[in-house]
Amino acid sequence: MKANRLIYLPLGGAGEIGMNAYVYGYGPEDKERLIVVDLGVTFPDMDTTPGVDLIMPDISWLEARKDRIEAIFITHAHEDHIGAVAHFWGRFKCPVYARRFTATIGRLKFDEHGHPKDAITVVEPRPAVVKAGPFDVQFVPVSHSIPESSALVIDSAAGRIVHSGDFKLDLQPLVGEPWDPEAFAAIAAERPVKALMCDSTNVFSRHPGRSESTLRAPLRDLIKAQRGMVVATTFASNVARLKTLAEAAQDADRTICLLGRAMRRMVTAAEQSGVLSGFPRTVSPEEAQDVPRGNLMLIVTGSQGERRAASAQLSRGKYLGLEMKEGDTFLFSSKTIPGNERGVISIMNAFSEMGVNIVDDNDGLYHVSGHANRPDLETVHKVLNPAIVIPMHGEHRHLREHARIALEAGRMTEVTTNGMMLDLTGDAPEVVEYIETGRSYLDGSVMVGARDGVIRNRIRMALNGHVLATLILDEADEPLGDAWVEISGLSEKGRTGAPLAETLEAELNALLEKTGRKVMADDDKLDEAVRRVIRQVAMEEIGKKPEVTVVVSRLSEG
Amino acid sequence: MKANRLIYLPLGGAGEIGMNAYVYGYGPEDKERLIVVDLGVTFPDMDTTPGVDLIMPDISWLEARKDRIEAIFITHAHEDHIGAVAHFWGRFKCPVYARRFTATIGRLKFDEHGHPKDAITVVEPRPAVVKAGPFDVQFVPVSHSIPESSALVIDSAAGRIVHSGDFKLDLQPLVGEPWDPEAFAAIAAERPVKALMCDSTNVFSRHPGRSESTLRAPLRDLIKAQRGMVVATTFASNVARLKTLAEAAQDADRTICLLGRAMRRMVTAAEQSGVLSGFPRTVSPEEAQDVPRGNLMLIVTGSQGERRAASAQLSRGKYLGLEMKEGDTFLFSSKTIPGNERGVISIMNAFSEMGVNIVDDNDGLYHVSGHANRPDLETVHKVLNPAIVIPMHGEHRHLREHARIALEAGRMTEVTTNGMMLDLTGDAPEVVEYIETGRSYLDGSVMVGARDGVIRNRIRMALNGHVLATLILDEADEPLGDAWVEISGLSEKGRTGAPLAETLEAELNALLEKTGRKVMADDDKLDEAVRRVIRQVAMEEIGKKPEVTVVVSRLSEG
Repeated sequence: MKANRLIYLPLGGAGEIGMNAYVYGYGPEDKERLIVVDLGVTFPDMDTTPGVDLIMPDISWLEARKDRIEAIFITHAHEDHIGAVAHFWGRFKCPVYARRFTATIGRLKFDEHGHPKDAITVVEPRPAVVKAGPFDVQFVPVSHSIPESSALVIDSAAGRIVHSGDFKLDLQPLVGEPWDPEAFAAIAAERPVKALMCDSTNVFSRHPGRSESTLRAPLRDLIKAQRGMVVATTFASNVARLKTLAEAAQDADRTICLLGRAMRRMVTAAEQSGVLSGFPRTVSPEEAQDVPRGNLMLIVTGSQGERRAASAQLSRGKYLGLEMKEGDTFLFSSKTIPGNERGVISIMNAFSEMGVNIVDDNDGLYHVSGHANRPDLETVHKVLNPAIVIPMHGEHRHLREHARIALEAGRMTEVTTNGMMLDLTGDAPEVVEYIETGRSYLDGSVMVGARDGVIRNRIRMALNGHVLATLILDEADEPLGDAWVEISGLSEKGRTGAPLAETLEAELNALLEKTGRKVMADDDKLDEAVRRVIRQVAMEEIGKKPEVTVVVSRLSEG
Repeated sequence: MKANRLIYLPLGGAGEIGMNAYVYGYGPEDKERLIVVDLGVTFPDMDTTPGVDLIMPDISWLEARKDRIEAIFITHAHEDHIGAVAHFWGRFKCPVYARRFTATIGRLKFDEHGHPKDAITVVEPRPAVVKAGPFDVQFVPVSHSIPESSALVIDSAAGRIVHSGDFKLDLQPLVGEPWDPEAFAAIAAERPVKALMCDSTNVFSRHPGRSESTLRAPLRDLIKAQRGMVVATTFASNVARLKTLAEAAQDADRTICLLGRAMRRMVTAAEQSGVLSGFPRTVSPEEAQDVPRGNLMLIVTGSQGERRAASAQLSRGKYLGLEMKEGDTFLFSSKTIPGNERGVISIMNAFSEMGVNIVDDNDGLYHVSGHANRPDLETVHKVLNPAIVIPMHGEHRHLREHARIALEAGRMTEVTTNGMMLDLTGDAPEVVEYIETGRSYLDGSVMVGARDGVIRNRIRMALNGHVLATLILDEADEPLGDAWVEISGLSEKGRTGAPLAETLEAELNALLEKTGRKVMADDDKLDEAVRRVIRQVAMEEIGKKPEVTVVVSRLSEG
């Protein structure tokens, strides 16, 4: 019998920020009992995933081993950690563990998918222990930009692992638990930490992170100084920020209205799970219409410029009866995530055209990050004193930088990206296998593989346009009537000024006339010949090689 | 007879950063003689302009008045100022004026387009005067991130206008002329400045701008400290930066190789036009292969992550025989323009995977901007002391902020965006007309209007996928054989697991069977019915409503 081993395998989140999915296993090789930590989504963009609704990790590896999965643990309720659980749970039907607030959000999702809500078990924080096969797992409260974020202590016969989750060192997070250095020291004192899997998001930020509580005074002063309507946007899940904004509004004698489904849902979930109390009274959009602008504050979704969120809607005009006007103020209490700049800037300019004053976080007064900066990471390394640091939750450049810091402090490390399986049994981490991983897309209501070619075809149509040619042939493989061409996403006229479709049809008819019987009788050869002519003529006429679909209908077949 | 008037009309660049095109006119209403200042391009993105090659201003208004155009003046050789001149010149065939370096670049473009090179006249700086109809125009040297950038003094009977062009206040720009406050004071002393049209790019930057010369020491220190190959990227047109980088390489005993056509072209043009001398010797990529890595420095194109530029090529592997390796250093001596983050980050991560050290400008050590910051703008306002400040070269939010500053200093101003015609004859600027403006796209070799629907169709295909249905009907409007469906950019299988195309075909055949003669005989109605079924079935099967092309072939017509 083979010896037991402890393995770590990221399926998402290691080499990207988003779509977190980490697997731990313990047992004999290829018979390890597995737990999954987080199962999140990432968001599509027009450059690489046009039309896609959500991006999730490829979990084929897990599916093929589903009988070995003991449980799924969710560290917190951000979409990049919880977003795929309800989508995939039906394939595993294993227990899911989370703290109360996270479970509340998770159960809303399970309900929408028709899964039993009680599939998610609420776990109390450490010292409570969840037994999952060979693993003992504890939830350790950490501060982050959402309530009840947790690190996990994962014990097995091969040693203690700490999985940091997303965290920052906030001594006064306003909502939720502060960073507690003693609690972390106790974890290491109780049993030495073999390995720390650690958030790398802000490894390039050189200054210690700032507390959520530092925003209170600046936000209060800002909102008090405004005369028109004030509208503020932030991440819906940042419950502490919502509370700070709402309290600042209250101080300024403003009535509060939450715009956007996600925002109302988060506040309700936070109140229901007991992490939020004393949130000022809010009014509905209908009621808000009757409040004088100078006494009104909207807190709205869409800090990243999302097209359908409240911010973007307001930038296009009236939304739920509410409208921005000259002299109003729009506050981005948020940072633009790289890649979202175009959407955010377009909203800013639309507001500028309306005469709205825009306040963003260029001065660092109205937003703080939810992730640990470099000095904070170093603090956590010191407190937990792990032999090994494995960076996670970062693009490759973040992981590499984080590994460098750990190495310089004399710890072992390995830049471990999605699909790399580490054996953590021995003294040093060892890469033992490369698993084929990737992404799968939720597209409408179906899943599409990233390598299926479906999305590649969309991108090609968007870049090159599309030509469709239909030919009808009779029993003798002779054309019945003329070739018919439809173009889509291409200039209607060519450089000669003649309609492109007609030029293509004329060239195709000329081709058919001179094409021999052998080619006419062969679907593949005929398709190839038609395609070549279309691309050649299009190149001459409009300087582009379009995507081509050829439909040859043979009436003899009917 | 109507009185003469002085008009200003931006056709591009006012409400965006890019695609600059400003028109000035003097004369009786609708008979003004016109000059054009700059005619630039802007660059496409996948979100709004997939597959497009270049974006240019819609110049229909100018074309309709081409007999009234006296000349085109080009302030400097950046693509957003010069890029469309060669494309459009054939429609105007008017004189083009520029300083020597700008003319050198312009003539290369004219040559490529088959235009006569001598259509561009080289102009010496002020006090030299170009007479263009009712206008006397002088080129005033300003410092910017390209050699021989110029402001224009535009005199007419209605007063003196200064058109700032792109500029910064650099006392030691290394290449080209420094900011000369006395020369600017002299302009105002000679004749009061009625209006200043002014660059707004950096109006949100609160600190005074830094000189190009401040980069010398940090770049030299950085490059000296490296052991492996050093690769630096910056804008090809930033000749001063190229020189600083090359000299730093020389100091560190490194051989220099310029990678990327634009980079070699710029250095050659700068040498030919006399603005650059003493540039260190460079070697070809072939020669560079024989130089030890520790003694080699590449200066490459692609600071904005452009897919085909040298940076991106190197991030994908070998390029022209050269390859990045572990221990090499890649320096972004540049700032990422908002919207280009995704491309730049993807290059950074690819280099990280190779073990390459990445240095960017997060610390502000290795790049300075070419535009005047807020305090610098205020300085120029004071020195020229114009009655009116019209912000240009900015998004709406920049123009608005710039106008606010001018207003606070007691000057008149008007946020003037593309298509707004100002009458500057009287004491105060007056908006007299709104011209329909927009963008036109160079797509392959043809121009496509932004509102033609061509690009909209591409975006729709990319978001929704495409279904093509072909039907053949006989003389009696009865189907000949079955309907045929091809899908593109859509999941091959629906939620039932059956092939989507087959499900669609079956539903179409069912439709055709039950469809009455009247609809079968009517192309529009039949098209509509087919389309409806396809979208409905697709929605059920895959949760998406695709774009649909229906081809009905009626053999009776043949």
